[in-house]
Amino acid sequence: MSIYVESFKNRIVKEIKQIQIKKHRWEKKVFIAEGLNFVDEIPESYHVEAFVFSKTFAEKNDIDFYEKKAPVYILKNEIFISLSDTKTPQGIMAVVGEKRYNPEDIVKRGDFFIVCEEVKDPGNLGTIIRTADAFGAKGVFLTKDCVDLYSGKVLRSTMGSVFHIPIVQGLEKTRIMELLKKYNVSPIGAHLSGKKTPDKLDLKKPCAILIGNETKGLSDEISSLCEELVKIPMPGKAESLNASVAAAVLMYETLRQRRL
Amino acid sequence: MSIYVESFKNRIVKEIKQIQIKKHRWEKKVFIAEGLNFVDEIPESYHVEAFVFSKTFAEKNDIDFYEKKAPVYILKNEIFISLSDTKTPQGIMAVVGEKRYNPEDIVKRGDFFIVCEEVKDPGNLGTIIRTADAFGAKGVFLTKDCVDLYSGKVLRSTMGSVFHIPIVQGLEKTRIMELLKKYNVSPIGAHLSGKKTPDKLDLKKPCAILIGNETKGLSDEISSLCEELVKIPMPGKAESLNASVAAAVLMYETLRQRRL
Repeated sequence: MSIYVESFKNRIVKEIKQIQIKKHRWEKKVFIAEGLNFVDEIPESYHVEAFVFSKTFAEKNDIDFYEKKAPVYILKNEIFISLSDTKTPQGIMAVVGEKRYNPEDIVKRGDFFIVCEEVKDPGNLGTIIRTADAFGAKGVFLTKDCVDLYSGKVLRSTMGSVFHIPIVQGLEKTRIMELLKKYNVSPIGAHLSGKKTPDKLDLKKPCAILIGNETKGLSDEISSLCEELVKIPMPGKAESLNASVAAAVLMYETLRQRRL
Repeated sequence: MSIYVESFKNRIVKEIKQIQIKKHRWEKKVFIAEGLNFVDEIPESYHVEAFVFSKTFAEKNDIDFYEKKAPVYILKNEIFISLSDTKTPQGIMAVVGEKRYNPEDIVKRGDFFIVCEEVKDPGNLGTIIRTADAFGAKGVFLTKDCVDLYSGKVLRSTMGSVFHIPIVQGLEKTRIMELLKKYNVSPIGAHLSGKKTPDKLDLKKPCAILIGNETKGLSDEISSLCEELVKIPMPGKAESLNASVAAAVLMYETLRQRRL
């Protein structure tokens, strides 16, 4: 069954506008997946509260499939556009229930993880999650001051990986470091003042790769709690690497060592 | 000496508006560097045609330094803002002469290179250039259909690396492949159907890493001319890596093998 919405004052319109604000998203434990590919990648294990289409999308596509799964709202095009987070709206979004993980349950599995401290750029965070998924990391932990995982740009940059790998956000820095210690997961910090290069470290053991803020790098607080600080060799003139590139190189090296 | 500009119709305002258009930039062989860090990173070896400041910037900063190097234009704030490419203009830009390289002169030096085929995302291209600089690649070659190197977002993402490493854009695909062949530089294509993983390839020899379009990957035309197609191992669920991440992993592996 579909509900046609022709007024900006409709309840669903107001609700979506609300969950576009981080605070309300967090309280309601939902987020918005926008775009055809992204919506079609939502796994069965996720609860979809509603599908929202533009009138044009609903006319041009077979929406029976969606109607069987959750309530469908068909919005006047101009209303849909007003809710869209993209420059060229495709006319499809879904309100999806968020999964919240207990970080301890993930850390205790060992293997390898990524911890992001104050990563602020949405593209960087999304790309780190996508890479962590590709390279088989067992979880991504985000400290309190990272960009919100469920902002549109982060979600798009994950290219669907947000659905594949456990991610915990809003963590206190001390909490995640304590958990790593409790379960013998070695914290390895990416740091320009690191003494060892990645290939000189043992990354076969259970470990967590820590990536800092784009401008400031890892904080002294976190760096001092790391077992090792690692510096990616840079023989060229650039002073640093992009945060998502640094994360990718360290994850690749972890994978390389484990495959040998 | 400084020239105060209070009219939108002033010659310098029109000129900057013109070189914000790719075609005119290309003809005039100049580009715009915006922001304090970026302008201050312009090396002596580059010719600056003009510095352009907002009135507020000129009042708050010592601009003698700039006046000694090139003509300085101080624009009414609203005029500067209308020319700025950023959300929060810092009030400083420079018109910089572009360096054009003969690709053959670069390829004949051997060592290692990056070739981007139809890389469209400005952030990806900028990050690839920054990483190539950090990892000591000897040049970056861009085929005709890549995003323009001198667009604001690409330049910003290079974080100054645009000044450190020779970059050639607008290349015909066949031309760059012929040059690689002529100078015995092995073309190694990043490809999802590659048979070998990066660590199983010899990347110590002179080589060029080829990175394809974000959606389509490397074209069949280019892939068929590669000596090897390489696949980065992805044991996780993500179907692919971000283009700049794939480039970074392959450059890191190249560097790792050469440092052994």
